[in-house]
Amino acid sequence: MKIKILGCYAATPRTITNPTSQVLEIKNHMFLIDCGEGTQVQLRKHKIKFSRIEHIFISHLHGDHFFGLIGLISTFMLLGREKDLHIYGPKGIKEAILLLLKLGNAYTSYGLYFHELKATASEVVFEDDKVKVSTIPLQHRVYTNGFLFEEKVTERPLNINAILNYDIDKVYYNKIKQGGAITLENGQQIPNDLLTFEPSAPKSYAFCSDTMYSEKIVPLLTNTTVLYHESTFLENEIDLAEKTMHSTAKQAAKIAKLAAVKHLLLGHYSTRYGDIELFKKEAQEIFDNVLLADDGLEFEF
Amino acid sequence: MKIKILGCYAATPRTITNPTSQVLEIKNHMFLIDCGEGTQVQLRKHKIKFSRIEHIFISHLHGDHFFGLIGLISTFMLLGREKDLHIYGPKGIKEAILLLLKLGNAYTSYGLYFHELKATASEVVFEDDKVKVSTIPLQHRVYTNGFLFEEKVTERPLNINAILNYDIDKVYYNKIKQGGAITLENGQQIPNDLLTFEPSAPKSYAFCSDTMYSEKIVPLLTNTTVLYHESTFLENEIDLAEKTMHSTAKQAAKIAKLAAVKHLLLGHYSTRYGDIELFKKEAQEIFDNVLLADDGLEFEF
Repeated sequence: MKIKILGCYAATPRTITNPTSQVLEIKNHMFLIDCGEGTQVQLRKHKIKFSRIEHIFISHLHGDHFFGLIGLISTFMLLGREKDLHIYGPKGIKEAILLLLKLGNAYTSYGLYFHELKATASEVVFEDDKVKVSTIPLQHRVYTNGFLFEEKVTERPLNINAILNYDIDKVYYNKIKQGGAITLENGQQIPNDLLTFEPSAPKSYAFCSDTMYSEKIVPLLTNTTVLYHESTFLENEIDLAEKTMHSTAKQAAKIAKLAAVKHLLLGHYSTRYGDIELFKKEAQEIFDNVLLADDGLEFEF
Repeated sequence: MKIKILGCYAATPRTITNPTSQVLEIKNHMFLIDCGEGTQVQLRKHKIKFSRIEHIFISHLHGDHFFGLIGLISTFMLLGREKDLHIYGPKGIKEAILLLLKLGNAYTSYGLYFHELKATASEVVFEDDKVKVSTIPLQHRVYTNGFLFEEKVTERPLNINAILNYDIDKVYYNKIKQGGAITLENGQQIPNDLLTFEPSAPKSYAFCSDTMYSEKIVPLLTNTTVLYHESTFLENEIDLAEKTMHSTAKQAAKIAKLAAVKHLLLGHYSTRYGDIELFKKEAQEIFDNVLLADDGLEFEF
């Protein structure tokens, strides 16, 4: 599981900082999460193939998370994309994108599917045999969702040498992958753990931006491998955090601790702070395993 | 008169090329012309003060001329701008911007005025005592206008030494600036040219992007100081130019010659060509005084 940070700064794009956008590579999917202005250029800069992006998740309709989407959709069109594209985001996103396309007299060369969200409880928005994506309802100035990406429990990898040793027929391989034991023709029982290896534990990534401090999300985040939680401010600006419905680094750490996540990844920094190490320092007073997102960084778990 | 090129490439923003946007500095105005994605970052990069921009002219609603506008409007709002902002652009632009603001639950802190255009003949869209701006109807795949920016004939600068010599009262200064002669108390007639200097010739800038070759615009452009005319393609791609309703460098030069402009400034290059000098070479077969726009360049006339 890899997380590439295309942008992780709050409010307005600048020459050296980009608004929110990330690419999550998980089980051969490349999920794009949020799409601030300039995201298409960031994707090019980091040599991420446009064709690998088939699902885009938009947390909310503030510009720094969303204004790059129409440009990306248009560029896909100009490049003659044929592959379907799925957009998951708040109700209203479809009307906005379609109006902008209509004004440009433009029609996509590919299937463009909108999955509009309006539920206030967590819901599954994407699922296949390897990954499940569900919403994390957040508290912000407009309707906002985080997203939880979970690998499914994988099949047990076959121990091919052992299987050949017991001369087991291929028709049983699927049963073995699912954890089943085998009875040989001579009646001997072979337990599954002699025929397979332990699969790696399924990983999960929770993206939570933007949100005020809210413990309501903790049950959804429990034992998550990586929690990206916004930390727009430091604790000395907690009044501003409350007023704008954002979080401090310390509050992000509190959520990480309550949910017993493995790693906390901070981001969505206000550009008023010169040194983002301050966010890490503050969070580590509460929770040890803190990482700092920054534009262009990639994290592998 | 200065023209700063923020971006002058066609179609999609890339790491090293930007979509169309320019700043025209004329008679103390800073007019922003077109606003592709990333324009606000280009403005920051070139240290153009946001507060000096009070009028934005949008030629048409294709993304590479327009998708940066909502981000700029939002950033002005986040920075607490108070000064009015005027947007001139095709009908529909207001609905699009207001929908995007509404979805973000955002209201501008400043007066945001839309001047929607739908006329197919040239019309004056802005005028004060120093400058007049009128539309140049263009032929493209969607409703498109170029813009003609004209300095007004200025008042004649006073020759203060001469005026003091004749002991002329201040109440006559305005009359003299307007070119009037003066009769002294002793009945002596003083012709205006003894009391004033020759004013500099008024300059003009015509922005024509995007358009197919059309001689209909020539009468509007006659004797323009600088004509920016798109040249998306070279003559070897004239079929593609016709199909997409764009122009070649040679066609741009033909218009420059027919209109007897002083300088032709080329831009809106397709990124398929490695070397933009090819555009200059082709245009100069028809018209001598050719300049090449490029991102970050500034031209002073």
